[in-house]
Amino acid sequence: MTGPRFTALIASLPETVPFVGPEVQERARGVRFRARLGANENGFGPSPFAMAAMQDEAAEVWKYADSEHPELKAALAEHLGCQTENILIGEGIDGLLGYLVRLLVAPGDAVVTSDGAYPTFDYHVAGFGGALHRVPYAADHEDLGGLIAKAAEVNAKMIYLANPDNPMGSWHSGAAIEAALDDLPEGCILALDEAYIEFAPQGTAPRIAPEDPRVLRFRTFSKAYGLAGMRLGYLVGAAASIRAFDKIRNHFGMTRLGLAGALAALEDPLWLEDIIRLVAEAREEIGRIAEANGLTPLPSATNFVAVDCGRDGAFARKVLDGLIAEGVFVRMPRVAPQDRCIRISVGRPEELAVLAEALPIALARARRNSET
Amino acid sequence: MTGPRFTALIASLPETVPFVGPEVQERARGVRFRARLGANENGFGPSPFAMAAMQDEAAEVWKYADSEHPELKAALAEHLGCQTENILIGEGIDGLLGYLVRLLVAPGDAVVTSDGAYPTFDYHVAGFGGALHRVPYAADHEDLGGLIAKAAEVNAKMIYLANPDNPMGSWHSGAAIEAALDDLPEGCILALDEAYIEFAPQGTAPRIAPEDPRVLRFRTFSKAYGLAGMRLGYLVGAAASIRAFDKIRNHFGMTRLGLAGALAALEDPLWLEDIIRLVAEAREEIGRIAEANGLTPLPSATNFVAVDCGRDGAFARKVLDGLIAEGVFVRMPRVAPQDRCIRISVGRPEELAVLAEALPIALARARRNSET
Repeated sequence: MTGPRFTALIASLPETVPFVGPEVQERARGVRFRARLGANENGFGPSPFAMAAMQDEAAEVWKYADSEHPELKAALAEHLGCQTENILIGEGIDGLLGYLVRLLVAPGDAVVTSDGAYPTFDYHVAGFGGALHRVPYAADHEDLGGLIAKAAEVNAKMIYLANPDNPMGSWHSGAAIEAALDDLPEGCILALDEAYIEFAPQGTAPRIAPEDPRVLRFRTFSKAYGLAGMRLGYLVGAAASIRAFDKIRNHFGMTRLGLAGALAALEDPLWLEDIIRLVAEAREEIGRIAEANGLTPLPSATNFVAVDCGRDGAFARKVLDGLIAEGVFVRMPRVAPQDRCIRISVGRPEELAVLAEALPIALARARRNSET
Repeated sequence: MTGPRFTALIASLPETVPFVGPEVQERARGVRFRARLGANENGFGPSPFAMAAMQDEAAEVWKYADSEHPELKAALAEHLGCQTENILIGEGIDGLLGYLVRLLVAPGDAVVTSDGAYPTFDYHVAGFGGALHRVPYAADHEDLGGLIAKAAEVNAKMIYLANPDNPMGSWHSGAAIEAALDDLPEGCILALDEAYIEFAPQGTAPRIAPEDPRVLRFRTFSKAYGLAGMRLGYLVGAAASIRAFDKIRNHFGMTRLGLAGALAALEDPLWLEDIIRLVAEAREEIGRIAEANGLTPLPSATNFVAVDCGRDGAFARKVLDGLIAEGVFVRMPRVAPQDRCIRISVGRPEELAVLAEALPIALARARRNSET
């Protein structure tokens, strides 16, 4: 009796996960985290109207969702000033990135990203056999010029750029991205991940015509809108590109409750304003805690702060391990020299109080361990 | 300015959807359906405990779901008498079938299915460039022997079999499937879609050791458990096969509310019993309505009934169009001679009353139109 005959590509891939989730770590350690500050979630939660909309929609849950998502698309089109045919709703940015890679990347096709940027994008490229070319960060920013030069060099089909960036929290102005577009090599598109755009300063989102064929913008209800647990992302781009996703997407893949929640969340801009303020305050508090411990918070346009621990990656890893041991879930960049930092997501005041308590302990332990 | 350079495979695919959903038809017609009897949904709804669990979980929706789904896997393992490592939770059977096809099918690889069976499976195979070989139904049943013979002939990597079958509602005994397994060609696995198994007579589910590498079984919370709108399917199979999905799956693709709802639904067997009884009663009522109009309901082990309209596909299409014109959403098989039938999903008594009212009108119109 033999099992499945996997494709050669699949046989070559590792069994892996782009992130080890907090619950997995909790089970491994046998203890719950006291503060959940590692997944760039939004502990302030979604709009109460979004919660109520999901609870109301529960009565309709026996029905498959509409495959075309017209209500949410119409609301987004109005919100963004584009047409509904410029929008695709999908299973989070993760799901949408997977579709995009599948559309463009045959084995060996070149793709460019920053070295140490979003692991799930790398996972998708590997999963379709793409040749991933990584460009180092420049002064903790994704290197726009470097990415474009690399794309030209390797004849890349796309560049992945997160603006603002994860894991560093840095950002480029919208104007800088608009200018960079004109240098994009022919036949290379920009996959612009704007997961954190709502937290960024005015002017961070480039003005790009929705029908510009060179760019696909990814946004999400997981961050500012507080709906990570419902898997809702969307894509803005030229109608012809958007239609191509209909060749492969899981047309009935969205949940009714998620769609209802997202629509209600979008229609509550006052809650979003509050969230943006609360996130800014929490970022400042993380900065204060870092500085009180002699560490350097980097500027951030997101809902997390990269905190420079002042030494190398091995030291930052010890600080991170110390925080985890103290019950604080955080993560860190995976590539030098960005890995001198730990990445701390915003949280409610009571969670940041746990951080304030745990960081000196973690630091003292890291320093002690580094001396031996 | 140029747009995306799609792969050659993608460029060759149509923009399509396996099913045109009821809401899409409603928008095209400008009027709502009065009875939703076309998508094999469960209008009796999920367990009230599942509804409550989802509503409670809304407070946690700002968190991404656990990537490993341990609670639901543990409950399913106990329910099924297997180990948690024999189970994979995924985004509905549709999503899981997509993953399976991706794992096995490189362009040109042979796959076998029944001609006129589940369109979404065909969609996935086309989407990965597989060579799909279709075997006709035999007396309105999927042809076990024919599928196996074809798989041997074309060196297929897998056979797709739905038991009970959709769209005909027919079924094979578990014993027949167990026997067929021993004839499965070396290197060919059986993708056994048991979406409707809870509605089937005792003995329809084959006894297959979870570690048998030749079979992957697909089940869902969309049908008997009434959670179609939350996208929850699962897969049972050998641990080594299940692990392979970790190479490509969207690890954080499930919703928190869906997982909570499924767990509560699984823990309410009395509700499931009620649903099975209500579905059986509704099937009988559909049969009575069909017979009262001179049509022949086929035996069904599912939550729908294929009703033989007694003539050819063109006539059945007219009956279907007439029902749609009367506000009754139904579907029909797409291949002759099964397309002599229309497929009517169960529904609540008030929806079946609409069917009873609409069917004579639709039939009279179809007969009148067929005479001209």
